[in-house]
Amino acid sequence: MTPAASYVALVHHPVLDKHGRVVTTAITNLDVHDIARATRTFGLARYFVVTPIEAQRQLVARILWHWTSGQGREHNDKRSDALARVTVVPTLADARAAIRAEAGAQPFVVATGARPRSGTWGFGELATPDGRPLLLVFGTGWGLAEEVFAAADATLAPVVGAGEYNHLSVRSAVAIVLDRLFGKR
Amino acid sequence: MTPAASYVALVHHPVLDKHGRVVTTAITNLDVHDIARATRTFGLARYFVVTPIEAQRQLVARILWHWTSGQGREHNDKRSDALARVTVVPTLADARAAIRAEAGAQPFVVATGARPRSGTWGFGELATPDGRPLLLVFGTGWGLAEEVFAAADATLAPVVGAGEYNHLSVRSAVAIVLDRLFGKR
Repeated sequence: MTPAASYVALVHHPVLDKHGRVVTTAITNLDVHDIARATRTFGLARYFVVTPIEAQRQLVARILWHWTSGQGREHNDKRSDALARVTVVPTLADARAAIRAEAGAQPFVVATGARPRSGTWGFGELATPDGRPLLLVFGTGWGLAEEVFAAADATLAPVVGAGEYNHLSVRSAVAIVLDRLFGKR
Repeated sequence: MTPAASYVALVHHPVLDKHGRVVTTAITNLDVHDIARATRTFGLARYFVVTPIEAQRQLVARILWHWTSGQGREHNDKRSDALARVTVVPTLADARAAIRAEAGAQPFVVATGARPRSGTWGFGELATPDGRPLLLVFGTGWGLAEEVFAAADATLAPVVGAGEYNHLSVRSAVAIVLDRLFGKR
């Protein structure tokens, strides 16, 4: 399991709202930037922003264009480097298909969440079978909908802090998960 | 060294711009939220937002008021919990004084940065002497100015990823540092 054969997906649908309903969340600009920079820092292959709403995909495409081809490139080429690894797709199935095309094998899909669940894998236990690429899936809003967990190959244990409170932003959660799996210390 | 006797400061002055000049950066709304949530998740005592600009301190005060007393409290009380631990101060000296008043001892001040430096402490080596409280200092912009490193009691090693690129957002860096020091896995 190497970072170079690993991928991140940030899902905006299907995710939960605070009442547990399945919704589509809006793109947050800093989710695009922060997770791209973490993906690049830890050497992952690609970061998929997943949203079924075409206008939202166009918004991400404009952000990417600004920083990789437009005026932003001149201002900060470290951001350009990071954002060059971002791809925006309508569904998680599209992300899986893109990985299969790029890496030549079906990704081993690992869902993440903040709430305790049965059968989660500890960070030290996680390994992809048969050299398959890894796809780490993160949810926006109040977390991934149940159907994403049901379709995943595994679920990672939540990041736990000092007590009951573990309401990290998804940006923070991605940073910690990538550091735990791939950081050097 | 316990999280309950540990503090985070996010410094907006003195920090560097991309040309290495000492500047004052603007408040970023999500820095307030994300770092408050990470501080709360890992059980730290308090998070200081440091800016010498009064209008910027008032902006942070308004954000805090909205989420801890205003309409935001009803919308999301997890954010209220986290933001209740945020204090905005003009200088790092004010943060140190507040900690001394609250904890009864001068904090052991640990600066952080993304660039390699000589004499940095590894994450496993960090310990505060004589039970003093810990103050972890993070810089916005292109990182803390040299004078902050010079005045600190210690400097933490940078978070290192897969290669040369380690341009994490400060939000991601705080999350990873708190997890490395205080996270359970």
